[in-house]
Amino acid sequence: MTSNTRIVLAKWPETVPVPGEHLVLDNSRTIDIENVPLNGGFLTKLLLISPEPYMLSRMRDPALRSFASPMVLGAPVVGMCLVKVLRSEKEGVNAGDYMYGMTHWELYTVQPYMEGRCMQRELWTPETFDLDSLVLQPVPDPKGAFPFSRYSSLMGIPGLAGYSSFMSLIAPRLNTDGQKTVFVSSGAGGVGTVIIQLAKKKGLKVIASAGSDQKVAYCKKIGADYAFNYETESYREALEKEGPIDFYYDNVGGIALEEAINACKLNAYIVVCGHITGYGKPVEERHGIKNTHLLFERRITIQGFLVPDLLSPTMMQQFFQDVPGWTAQGLLQSEEKLIDGFENAPQALVEAVWGGSDYSVSKLVVVVAKD
Amino acid sequence: MTSNTRIVLAKWPETVPVPGEHLVLDNSRTIDIENVPLNGGFLTKLLLISPEPYMLSRMRDPALRSFASPMVLGAPVVGMCLVKVLRSEKEGVNAGDYMYGMTHWELYTVQPYMEGRCMQRELWTPETFDLDSLVLQPVPDPKGAFPFSRYSSLMGIPGLAGYSSFMSLIAPRLNTDGQKTVFVSSGAGGVGTVIIQLAKKKGLKVIASAGSDQKVAYCKKIGADYAFNYETESYREALEKEGPIDFYYDNVGGIALEEAINACKLNAYIVVCGHITGYGKPVEERHGIKNTHLLFERRITIQGFLVPDLLSPTMMQQFFQDVPGWTAQGLLQSEEKLIDGFENAPQALVEAVWGGSDYSVSKLVVVVAKD
Repeated sequence: MTSNTRIVLAKWPETVPVPGEHLVLDNSRTIDIENVPLNGGFLTKLLLISPEPYMLSRMRDPALRSFASPMVLGAPVVGMCLVKVLRSEKEGVNAGDYMYGMTHWELYTVQPYMEGRCMQRELWTPETFDLDSLVLQPVPDPKGAFPFSRYSSLMGIPGLAGYSSFMSLIAPRLNTDGQKTVFVSSGAGGVGTVIIQLAKKKGLKVIASAGSDQKVAYCKKIGADYAFNYETESYREALEKEGPIDFYYDNVGGIALEEAINACKLNAYIVVCGHITGYGKPVEERHGIKNTHLLFERRITIQGFLVPDLLSPTMMQQFFQDVPGWTAQGLLQSEEKLIDGFENAPQALVEAVWGGSDYSVSKLVVVVAKD
Repeated sequence: MTSNTRIVLAKWPETVPVPGEHLVLDNSRTIDIENVPLNGGFLTKLLLISPEPYMLSRMRDPALRSFASPMVLGAPVVGMCLVKVLRSEKEGVNAGDYMYGMTHWELYTVQPYMEGRCMQRELWTPETFDLDSLVLQPVPDPKGAFPFSRYSSLMGIPGLAGYSSFMSLIAPRLNTDGQKTVFVSSGAGGVGTVIIQLAKKKGLKVIASAGSDQKVAYCKKIGADYAFNYETESYREALEKEGPIDFYYDNVGGIALEEAINACKLNAYIVVCGHITGYGKPVEERHGIKNTHLLFERRITIQGFLVPDLLSPTMMQQFFQDVPGWTAQGLLQSEEKLIDGFENAPQALVEAVWGGSDYSVSKLVVVVAKD
């Protein structure tokens, strides 16, 4: 028997989850790797964990309405992970395969394999996505063309979010004359990194904001024409100098959204991907946006989206055609901060949301095992 | 010689214009109606004046950026008016014709007739509309089928705004199953009146808000399924009871916009037409909207528009096919509050923006002359 450590959601966090209180390491379970019954499924071993901001919205009392299905209290946390198949009774899944997708934060899991490429749309209600239906899917071993950790960034949720929204929402609006300007907040974040690079590929001028000088340097490194640290240069100053803008890609909400509206050209288009400044803060305490009169004066469109809305089979096919190849060729870059040790996953989640300004790189990844 | 009274923009108002200070009655001019040279144009007599909120944004220092061309300091105020042609040297314009469009607030004007149906789009810069190019156009004498004052409501700027936006932005989104619900703020206002009635024509459930019990009664009279006085019932209560909503038609901004976002269903669509709560208030003092995270959680689209954007020749043709006929048949209703006397026009403008809660009807009109 082998110890099967897991990280359990013990209590709903009200704001910032506390490791040991809300997210608890549980060493009580064991598993017989050789003999555990698979019942037609397969057994996986956890390699990498990708802690991400959206996970917070799943850690809530199910009575509270939100966009994604809640996690189960007392059960392991669920998130995007890279796993390796140890044993399989499932046709098409073989020992030694690598797979990526939603799975439990536990060392070994018997997977109930669901059919379907990526999204089990029929499991979604009109109100929420059952994110657990983002099932594991096989991913190739990049054999050194890129590290496995790219599956958590360019080829993970941030990559899917950035690629699908840029291609579906922004790219179709580029068929006009003249250079367009896009402003990307949280430019060094997982999604921001993708948007900066896709925007440069399409010839846009890119302005990016970030919360530290290292992050600003990183935005420039991956192509931003102008990047600024919002702690030392105000959004207003930067956008007055480098704007006005045709597009704003909003990852943060709050003051950045308000100042982006101020800097909008006529017929500008704002994509709202996330509101990281609001996470863990009661709505009443958030920054209120007062310049909404500019929405009609400048005929601005704001479009909110969630990734699953955009992930048609065609989009998924296009994503897997483009992104792994571009990554292997170095045409799309990212960096991951690797954190060793499964026991550090709860703290890594907290840092991915609130503590990231120390990192100069786009994505935190927890390394549970090398292979 | 006849006295040619006019109302001059003497000074830029900072917030609420003060009659006598910013808007000054000037009796110093005279005109020789029989002999004034027309130079190929035509001479008009002012009958009705339609004071409207958008006019405020034209009463500003030209150095300040806004969506519409500024009025000229020292010159007469310009607004939508009904006039009668007294003399003409212009082919197609005859003495006795009625015309409606932008003209000076002065009793008699020699009009420099510009060719074009309604909008001289070539005069617009990308940044502003030259609203003076909304030239006078001939309108038929309704001969009792409806009063001339309807040219300021259903067939004036409010009618154009409401009809073109409903038909261009909301109607194309109705081709799905199930009854949809729309919330209209300022439901008894000029635009709100049109939206309530068009929405009912299309089978939507309509919720309307207004600022007095008389206005609420008026909203119900023209078809709103539920109407409430926001002074005595909160937006939140009303929308929790009668929502959630598929559409919000925003005439007011502020708290109404925030609460409408709270009440949005998935994939809801918000049209921003005006922000009357913000007029004359510095941006810093306006209500800040804090729940913008719902934009992505519920995949909400917000679309700001200005009327001239939507007024294609096809839309204008459709408007003039539908609205006068519907008005004559009583299928579209409105009421105007008639205010006698040209000298009351400045105060009527102030009341149209800030003082309207005493009126139970949708539109203020100043009667300068009966014929």
